[in-house]
Amino acid sequence: MCDSCGCSDHSVAEVRTTEEHVHVLRDLLAENKHQALHNRLHLDQHGVVAVNLMSAPGAGKTALLEATIAELAGQYRIGIIVGDLATENDARRLRRHGVDAVQIETGQVCHLDSAMVHRALHDLPLDELDFLFIENVGNLVCPACFDLGQHHNVVLLSVTEGADKPAKYPVMFRVADRVVLTKLDLLPYVGDFQPEAAIAALRGLANTAPVQALSARSGEGLDVWLTWLTTIRKSRPMYIQVSS
Amino acid sequence: MCDSCGCSDHSVAEVRTTEEHVHVLRDLLAENKHQALHNRLHLDQHGVVAVNLMSAPGAGKTALLEATIAELAGQYRIGIIVGDLATENDARRLRRHGVDAVQIETGQVCHLDSAMVHRALHDLPLDELDFLFIENVGNLVCPACFDLGQHHNVVLLSVTEGADKPAKYPVMFRVADRVVLTKLDLLPYVGDFQPEAAIAALRGLANTAPVQALSARSGEGLDVWLTWLTTIRKSRPMYIQVSS
Repeated sequence: MCDSCGCSDHSVAEVRTTEEHVHVLRDLLAENKHQALHNRLHLDQHGVVAVNLMSAPGAGKTALLEATIAELAGQYRIGIIVGDLATENDARRLRRHGVDAVQIETGQVCHLDSAMVHRALHDLPLDELDFLFIENVGNLVCPACFDLGQHHNVVLLSVTEGADKPAKYPVMFRVADRVVLTKLDLLPYVGDFQPEAAIAALRGLANTAPVQALSARSGEGLDVWLTWLTTIRKSRPMYIQVSS
Repeated sequence: MCDSCGCSDHSVAEVRTTEEHVHVLRDLLAENKHQALHNRLHLDQHGVVAVNLMSAPGAGKTALLEATIAELAGQYRIGIIVGDLATENDARRLRRHGVDAVQIETGQVCHLDSAMVHRALHDLPLDELDFLFIENVGNLVCPACFDLGQHHNVVLLSVTEGADKPAKYPVMFRVADRVVLTKLDLLPYVGDFQPEAAIAALRGLANTAPVQALSARSGEGLDVWLTWLTTIRKSRPMYIQVSS
């Protein structure tokens, strides 16, 4: 196994693949799916709506969460799980705003998986939470494949990254339930980012998810984001226990 | 196996890991390493210097290559291998500048591997090239683990991404032989990016690689980059065939 990174099976597409390889990979993903279903049931039982935020590194996931907490903390109780290969930086940033934030250091792993999230859930006061935000590892490829038990997948795309990203990272943009174009305040200086082109690239993947733009720094567009959150909170999945 | 992505073994860190899993992963990485050594020998035989460009999506790898070609094309012959999950966008962009560019569409795979590069090498006129640039898949995690046969690893970090990235993505920044801070023209508008902090984070990983800043758009700092390329070209590995 690679000393510095867990991401080694990717090469199955190119190196000599055996039946054994395929069997092992199927096994691992089935295990992840099973645990994710358990997580989702657990969240439903506690009435918590879970949103999984995914993006490239530095697209502004933590900044969006900070702005969200500032606006919603009086109304809703928010818990956060943050994934990074290393450092507690983001959880520390978020705890300053008075929310419960659990950092998962993935070490050599390039995404969160459902087993990591399951363990983190036990460190959060689920009975008291309205929202759980999961800030995934900054990676526009791998996190897309791992169901964590979330209810909604939000994919962030910074205007500095280029409008063709949905076409170039189809795996990620196909699983998006909502796409948020971030760093809108930088748009005048970037010059060559056409939001319409990003939307067209998303539609090219047959994904009809809503797309919105915002700037966590200036606050522009934040109202649309907050309205969406309020809506998904109101229409959250209900868990009905059937007594025997 | 995941239907939409090859990245499934990552979860070995968390899900039930068996000896079989570990065996399979070791096997795949050993295969990659073996092919990479073959690629490097092949490049040395043809006197080609190979530079592997890695970064998060949208950090400006293609823009840097365009600026590089514009400056060096009269002096050196340049070949390019571009990796993306989908689309030929980048190879098309680069071919407009009159260079040989081979696009690898990785499909479900989040990085280039040495077998992919090996096949692409056969589509390039190696005997006529001075430089081979490999533009890896935009991903600040997984490409770090896969030796492709390159001579130099360059990691790009856009000033819009945040200065703590080396600490948060240590696997990638540890393998960097050179770090290039890109989109320097956006620095005044980003506000909170301290180049010194990015360098300190890199040094925190015990990596002493040179760090430089540039803007492919304004041209600022490009001279330093071009000087480095000229230097590594002059001091390229020599291949001496021993006659039997």
